[in-house]
Amino acid sequence: MAVRAAVAGASGYAGGELLRLLLTHPEVEIGALTGNSNAGQRLGALQPHLLPLADRVLEPTTPEALAGHDVVFLALPHGQSAAVAEQLGPDVLVVDMGADFRLEDAADWEAFYGSPHAGTWPYGLPELPGARGALEGSKRIAVPGCYPTAVSLALFPAYAAHLAEPEAVIVAASGTSGAGKAAKPHLLGSEVMGSMSPYGVGGGHRHTPEMIQNLGAVAGEPVTVSFTPTLAPMPRGILATCSAKARPPVTAESVRAAYEKAFADEPFVHLLPEGQWPATASVYGSNAVQVQVAYDAAAGRIIAISAIDNLAKGTAGGAVQSMNIALGLDETTGLTTIGVAP
Amino acid sequence: MAVRAAVAGASGYAGGELLRLLLTHPEVEIGALTGNSNAGQRLGALQPHLLPLADRVLEPTTPEALAGHDVVFLALPHGQSAAVAEQLGPDVLVVDMGADFRLEDAADWEAFYGSPHAGTWPYGLPELPGARGALEGSKRIAVPGCYPTAVSLALFPAYAAHLAEPEAVIVAASGTSGAGKAAKPHLLGSEVMGSMSPYGVGGGHRHTPEMIQNLGAVAGEPVTVSFTPTLAPMPRGILATCSAKARPPVTAESVRAAYEKAFADEPFVHLLPEGQWPATASVYGSNAVQVQVAYDAAAGRIIAISAIDNLAKGTAGGAVQSMNIALGLDETTGLTTIGVAP
Amino acid sequence: MAVRAAVAGASGYAGGELLRLLLTHPEVEIGALTGNSNAGQRLGALQPHLLPLADRVLEPTTPEALAGHDVVFLALPHGQSAAVAEQLGPDVLVVDMGADFRLEDAADWEAFYGSPHAGTWPYGLPELPGARGALEGSKRIAVPGCYPTAVSLALFPAYAAHLAEPEAVIVAASGTSGAGKAAKPHLLGSEVMGSMSPYGVGGGHRHTPEMIQNLGAVAGEPVTVSFTPTLAPMPRGILATCSAKARPPVTAESVRAAYEKAFADEPFVHLLPEGQWPATASVYGSNAVQVQVAYDAAAGRIIAISAIDNLAKGTAGGAVQSMNIALGLDETTGLTTIGVAP
Amino acid sequence: MAVRAAVAGASGYAGGELLRLLLTHPEVEIGALTGNSNAGQRLGALQPHLLPLADRVLEPTTPEALAGHDVVFLALPHGQSAAVAEQLGPDVLVVDMGADFRLEDAADWEAFYGSPHAGTWPYGLPELPGARGALEGSKRIAVPGCYPTAVSLALFPAYAAHLAEPEAVIVAASGTSGAGKAAKPHLLGSEVMGSMSPYGVGGGHRHTPEMIQNLGAVAGEPVTVSFTPTLAPMPRGILATCSAKARPPVTAESVRAAYEKAFADEPFVHLLPEGQWPATASVYGSNAVQVQVAYDAAAGRIIAISAIDNLAKGTAGGAVQSMNIALGLDETTGLTTIGVAP
Repeated sequence: MAVRAAVAGASGYAGGELLRLLLTHPEVEIGALTGNSNAGQRLGALQPHLLPLADRVLEPTTPEALAGHDVVFLALPHGQSAAVAEQLGPDVLVVDMGADFRLEDAADWEAFYGSPHAGTWPYGLPELPGARGALEGSKRIAVPGCYPTAVSLALFPAYAAHLAEPEAVIVAASGTSGAGKAAKPHLLGSEVMGSMSPYGVGGGHRHTPEMIQNLGAVAGEPVTVSFTPTLAPMPRGILATCSAKARPPVTAESVRAAYEKAFADEPFVHLLPEGQWPATASVYGSNAVQVQVAYDAAAGRIIAISAIDNLAKGTAGGAVQSMNIALGLDETTGLTTIGVAP
Repeated sequence: MAVRAAVAGASGYAGGELLRLLLTHPEVEIGALTGNSNAGQRLGALQPHLLPLADRVLEPTTPEALAGHDVVFLALPHGQSAAVAEQLGPDVLVVDMGADFRLEDAADWEAFYGSPHAGTWPYGLPELPGARGALEGSKRIAVPGCYPTAVSLALFPAYAAHLAEPEAVIVAASGTSGAGKAAKPHLLGSEVMGSMSPYGVGGGHRHTPEMIQNLGAVAGEPVTVSFTPTLAPMPRGILATCSAKARPPVTAESVRAAYEKAFADEPFVHLLPEGQWPATASVYGSNAVQVQVAYDAAAGRIIAISAIDNLAKGTAGGAVQSMNIALGLDETTGLTTIGVAP
Repeated sequence: MAVRAAVAGASGYAGGELLRLLLTHPEVEIGALTGNSNAGQRLGALQPHLLPLADRVLEPTTPEALAGHDVVFLALPHGQSAAVAEQLGPDVLVVDMGADFRLEDAADWEAFYGSPHAGTWPYGLPELPGARGALEGSKRIAVPGCYPTAVSLALFPAYAAHLAEPEAVIVAASGTSGAGKAAKPHLLGSEVMGSMSPYGVGGGHRHTPEMIQNLGAVAGEPVTVSFTPTLAPMPRGILATCSAKARPPVTAESVRAAYEKAFADEPFVHLLPEGQWPATASVYGSNAVQVQVAYDAAAGRIIAISAIDNLAKGTAGGAVQSMNIALGLDETTGLTTIGVAP
Repeated sequence: MAVRAAVAGASGYAGGELLRLLLTHPEVEIGALTGNSNAGQRLGALQPHLLPLADRVLEPTTPEALAGHDVVFLALPHGQSAAVAEQLGPDVLVVDMGADFRLEDAADWEAFYGSPHAGTWPYGLPELPGARGALEGSKRIAVPGCYPTAVSLALFPAYAAHLAEPEAVIVAASGTSGAGKAAKPHLLGSEVMGSMSPYGVGGGHRHTPEMIQNLGAVAGEPVTVSFTPTLAPMPRGILATCSAKARPPVTAESVRAAYEKAFADEPFVHLLPEGQWPATASVYGSNAVQVQVAYDAAAGRIIAISAIDNLAKGTAGGAVQSMNIALGLDETTGLTTIGVAP
C-alpha cells in the first residue's frame, strides 16, 4: 500500500526538489501540496520542470489540508515547523527540512536563531555513527542542513579514527539555490554569474553549531569549527573543503584506510579512487556524495573534500533517505547515485 | 527477459547520457561498452557521474565486443556507423545516434557531409506524422539531430495545418555539450562563459537539410529554412525560436488549435498554457519538450518556440524512445518528463 | 574646463555603468549622484566595483541636487524623465537613458507604454544616417534602447542599400543586466544559470516600435519587425540575429559591399573579416559593435548579426558617445573598442 | 618619449590581458608581438576583443623580433623564459610573467617544477614589505603567480603584526582562465559550467612554495601552508579564503588595526568597510584587490579573504604595476581600480 505524503511549502526549491524525487518513488503517493503566499496557484507556473504535477493547485498550509497523510514533509521557513508539527499527531511521520529540530543545545539554537528552542528530533544523516538506529521507526526526523551534510560526511571518518586535532577549518562553495527562491538583489543572476563571494564569515553562519555538534559527537571531545561559506556561480552543488591538523602518527595510508572503512557499506557515499577529486557536476540531481581525502605531510594536515547536490542529498534526498529508514523501506528506494552531467 | 544493449562510443557526451538513461530503464541490461582512444580506461574516470558503472572498463569497438546483444547503440563520429552496422546482422536492433542514416537525399548528404551516402533508416522522431509506423518492429533507427528535433517539433503543427508559408526562419541557442567532448579552444569554459556567438551562419550547418526534409514532408511542398545556430553559455539545452509568415486567414485561435491538436496525445511534448514560455532549465535531464506558439498579427508571423535537452530528447532520450517503439515496449519506458531544476 | 555631470539614478545597472565610463572620461567631472529608495547610502555598498566613488553618498533626486551641472544623465524608470527634465532648464544637456523620448509616434508610445507621450528628442544612435547632425549642439538626447541599438546597426546597411524586403525577423539574446537590478524571482541566479528562455514574444516587447521606426526611416518605406528577445545565462551582452528576404538581384558580394560602405568610417562598429562571427564576450565592457553579414542563397535571406555590450554601447556608452557629439567633443572621448575577455 | 614594449606570447590569456592594459597605458607604445604555434596569424583571430590590434600579425619569438625594445614581457610556458631573457641584454627591462624566476630556493624550484633553477629576480608584488625598493630601477622582474598574489596580500598583515600562528590554511577558487588557453577536456565549458572541483590538493600545487616564501619572509619564521585550489565556473577571478590560528592576545580590533595600517597607503588594495565582503565580480578587469578580515573568537582564528582578477592584478596588471615602478613612472599609470560589473 502506498505511503501518502503531503508537502508543506511546495513552491520553494526544497519543496520542488522533494516533489521531483517523490514523483519517482515507487512507494509514495503524492497528496496535499500547500503553500502560503502561493496558495491557489498552479504548480506548473511555480515549478515548470515538474510537468506531471503541472495542473495541481497549491492549498493553504492548514491542519485540514495536511490531515490524512502517512508522511508530512515540512519545507517551511525556520521557526514555523513546530506549530505545524504539533497539529499532526504522534502517528504521522513528520520530516522537517528546516532547522528547527536539528540542534541539541537550546543555548546554541537561541544564539544562532534568536528564538526559543523547539526541541530536538532524530537527526537525518544516516551515515553518521549511530544515526540509523535513532531513525528506524521514528515519527519525527530533523533533516540536516546542506553544509553540515557535506562537511560531516567529509570529516567524520578522520574524527572517528582519532586521526585529527579537534580544530576543523572548512571553506565551502554553494550553488545559489541554497539561498532559496526569495528574490533578493544579491542573488540576481547579474550579480552571481561570474562571481565568487563569501558570507557569514567568522563563525556567524547558522550551520556552524550543527557541524560542531556532529563532529564533536564522533570525536568524543569538543571540536571547534572555522566555517566560511561562499556563494558560487552555479545553481546547485556544494563543494566542501575541510581540513584539520593530523594527530601523529598519521600516514597517507592510515588516513585512506579510515575513510575506506567508514564508507565501505554506504550506498550513497563514494570514496573516489586515489588521484580523482570530487566535482559538484558529477552529483548533480543525485543523492550521491563524492569524497576524497589527502594527507599533506608538509603542512601536517588532513584535507577531506566532499561534493553533494545541496538540494538532493543536502536537503530533499536526505529527507527521503531518512523517511525510507523510518518507514522500514530499503534506504535507497527512490534515490539514485547517478548524476546528470555534463 | 531483459533487452541486452551495447553502447559503441561510451566515453562521449551522447554515450554518457544514453548510459544514464539505460541505467534506470527497467527492460534493459547494459552490456558491452566500447571506445576507441579511451579503450582500456575505467568509466569512472571518463563519466564520473555514472557511479554504478564506475568500475566498468571500455573495450575497443570491435565486432566481437558488440556481438551477442539485442540492441547496439552507435554514438560514433559521423561516417563510422555504416561499417559497424554492417557487421551486426539484420536481427540486431541498431540505433545510430550519428547523422549517417538520417537524410533521404544522397545529394544532400554529399553536399553537407562530403562523403558517400550510406543510406536511409527509419527516422526516430516519433511525434512526426507517420513516424511511429516506420519505427515499429524496425531493426534500424536513425536518431535525429538535436536541432532538427527541437525545430521540427516546434514547427510541424503549423505546416501540417497549412497555416504557414514554406519559408521558415530559425534561430536556436544550444548548450555547449552539443559540440561534443573533444577539446577545442573555442569550447573552453573561459571562452563560452559570459558569451553568446553564432556559427554555421547562412545555411551551412549540417542539420539544415534534415530540417528541410522534415518540414517539407509535413507541408507537402518544399520548405526553405534559414537556420542560425548559436552557442549559449550553458552545458545543456536547446531553445529554438522558429517563425514563418502566416497564411491567411490565420488567427491566434486557429494557430493554438493546430498545436493543441498536434500534441494532444503526445507523452513528451507539452504545449504550455498561454502566457507561459519554454525554458531550457525546465527540461534539464528530461525527455520533455516544452512548446509555445504565438501569432504576431502586426508582423504577420507565427512564432513557435521549443525547449529540449539536447542530450536527452535531442539525442539519447530520443534514441531510447524510438528503441522502445521498435521493440514493442511502452514508448515512455525508462523516460521521464520531470526536469532537474533549478 | 571640465564638463560637470550629474547622474539621476546612480544605484542601478545603467547608472553604475555610466559612472564607470565617466570616471575615466577626461573631460567630465562627476557631480551629484542621486537615487530614490537608496538615497543616503554609500555608493560603495551599491556599486562595489566603483572603488574611487566608494565614499560618495546618494542624494535624493531633487531639482536642487541636479542644479549647477552642465550635463544631467537620467537613469530613471520609464515615465519619470519628463518631470525631472522640465526642471532643468534649456541650457543644460539632458541625456535620457530611459525610453520616454525615443518614439516619434505618440500612438506607438501610448500603445506600448500605456501613458501619455512626453515628446521626442534627438535620437542618440549616431551611426544611423543623419543622426549626428541632429545630435550636434542638441541639449536633449534620447538614448536608444539596448535591443534597438544592436538590431538597427545590424540591419540598417541592408535597408539603406535597398537589398532587403521590409519584413525583418529578429531573435536576440540578452544578458540579465538588461532586465535591471530590481529583485524578481525569474531573474534569480538559480533560475537563469543554465537556462535560455524567451519573453515578450509575438510583438509585445516595448523595443519593437523603436526598431520599426529606425529601420523604416532608413528603408524609406514601412518595415515590419518580428522580434523575439531571449534571456541568456550571462550578465551582459546582446547577440542580435537579424534577417530579411533578399531583394533580387542580390549577391554575397553586394551585401558585403553595402556593409563595408556603411561602416567604413565608424569608430565603434567593426565589420568582422569574412569567416569570423561576433561574440558578446569580445565587446564586454566596450563601446564596440561587432557585425557580420551573410547571404544565404538557398533560403534567399540576408542574415546580419551584431554583438554589443547592452550596458555599454547599448546604454551608457551610447549615452556618452552622443553626449560627446552634443558637446562638440571628439565622439570617441572616454570610450574604448577594447573588450574585457576572456 | 614612449616606452617601447614587446610581448612574447601574445596569443594566450596572459598576453592578451597585458595587451589590453598596454593599449591604454599612456607611456607605452606596443612593439613586437610574438608567438610560437600561432606565428603568422592575425591578432584579430586570436584576441578578437582587442579591436585596435586586430590587423597586427604575430611574429615568431626570436631575438631579432624582440630586439630594439625598452621592455620585453615574457608570457611563455614555464621553463622558457631564461633562454629568451639571456639574449635580451642587461639594459632591457625584462618582465617575466611565468614562474621561472620567482623562487629563491633552488631545491623548491626543482621539487615543484622538475627542472634546473634559472635564478631569482626581484619579486613583483610591490605591496609586500620591502618589495618596492627591490623593483625600483631593476631590469628584471619576476611577476608573482596569481594565487600567491591573492593569498600573500590577504595574509601578510596578520604575519607582519605577529597576530597569527605560522600555519596558514588556504582554500582559493579561481576562474578558468587561470588554467590557460590550451584546450584540455576538463576545461571545456560543458565540464566547468555548473561545477566546482578541487585540484592539486595536499600540497602539490606549484604556487605553494611561493606562498611559503612570501609569508615566511614577512613573519620572520617558517610558515607552513595548506593550500587547496578549486576551479570555479567563471572566466576570471580569484577568491582566496585564508586563515590561521590567532596568537593571543588578539582582538577583532587589533586585527582590523593591523590591516588598516598595512593597506593605508596602498593604491590598489582596498580594505572593505566592516560588514562588506569581497566579490570577484567587483574587481573584474581591474587591478584592485578587495580584502576583508574577521576574527572568529570561538574558533580562535583570523580569517582574511581577498578577491582579485587573476589575469589583471594576478598577472598582467601586476606586471604593469611593477614595470611602472622599475621605470620610475607613477605606480598606478595605466591601471585602474574600477571593475566591470555586473
